[in-house]
Amino acid sequence: MAHITLQEGSLPGIFSLLYYRKEMASPLVTFTETLLRGSSPISHAEREIIASYVSYLNNCYFCFACHGATAAALLGLGIEFLDEIKEKLPNQDITPRLRSLLNIAEAVQQGGNYVDEFLITSAKKRGVSEIDIHDVVLISSAFCMFNRYVEGLNVPYPLDKKSYIGIGKKLAKDGYHMPEVTPV
Amino acid sequence: MAHITLQEGSLPGIFSLLYYRKEMASPLVTFTETLLRGSSPISHAEREIIASYVSYLNNCYFCFACHGATAAALLGLGIEFLDEIKEKLPNQDITPRLRSLLNIAEAVQQGGNYVDEFLITSAKKRGVSEIDIHDVVLISSAFCMFNRYVEGLNVPYPLDKKSYIGIGKKLAKDGYHMPEVTPV
Repeated sequence: MAHITLQEGSLPGIFSLLYYRKEMASPLVTFTETLLRGSSPISHAEREIIASYVSYLNNCYFCFACHGATAAALLGLGIEFLDEIKEKLPNQDITPRLRSLLNIAEAVQQGGNYVDEFLITSAKKRGVSEIDIHDVVLISSAFCMFNRYVEGLNVPYPLDKKSYIGIGKKLAKDGYHMPEVTPV
Repeated sequence: MAHITLQEGSLPGIFSLLYYRKEMASPLVTFTETLLRGSSPISHAEREIIASYVSYLNNCYFCFACHGATAAALLGLGIEFLDEIKEKLPNQDITPRLRSLLNIAEAVQQGGNYVDEFLITSAKKRGVSEIDIHDVVLISSAFCMFNRYVEGLNVPYPLDKKSYIGIGKKLAKDGYHMPEVTPV
């Protein structure tokens, strides 16, 4: 049960919170759209993978599954891709640059001070640019917020990955906006 | 030295980042203004104290000192108030409600799943409302983002509390907006 009273029959996860304090949620939704889908040298699918992986590390199944399912939809992969993300994509042929971005995201998730010179220098050697560094630090930081927001309020959501296939396809296609239906 | 190249002579801490990726920073600034200074049952000074305390726990001296100095300015206290915030206000005659809010903020800082039924039930007994719970969870979550953003990019800032007196007074009076001076 959520720690606050949400509208009956409300949407799962963070979607149920967007109208609880609409004035606070609205800039967050704009921010998410820009962060994950705006202009960046990190591709949209890569950003969704980073968001999903950080959410997994923060024990937020909802954000992990939503963003992982979105990445899967963008890449034309099945929902089993979630299991790959959990393990930091051991079987995927990903670039050393994306590996470095995931390493930086992981350090940020532990705490900002875990990002050290060694990590940055070795990332730059693998083709990571300064804009990449900025964007991955902000994506990981942002999900340390969103994950805590969802879990700290104990908002209910489904725990099976198949429930996220449709959400992932919709987010991949339409992005992040305030839900159109205003609660009664 | 910051992990990314910031404009020479740029402002300290997060201020230097606001123009690095303006399209991402702009909704974050609007969000901060609403979160800390918009309508809420938690007073502006209390919200600044919560932001400062969480930043201290996250080892972000910049955000700790900025928001602590803002709280001090709002309450008509000296900059020594920062030392009180570090220790969770042991010598202040604060309400059991604010103590409960700080306890919830501390749990969220550790991770969203640390907010349990016991913490929520005992907070409600001390006069904490559901909107209070929502707002304190979001404030603590947000500073888990801002702190990581500043520290993860290793942005420089002063380490003596006196440097923050002026910033605190300005933030207390004018709030959170994009800086007026556009970098060259």
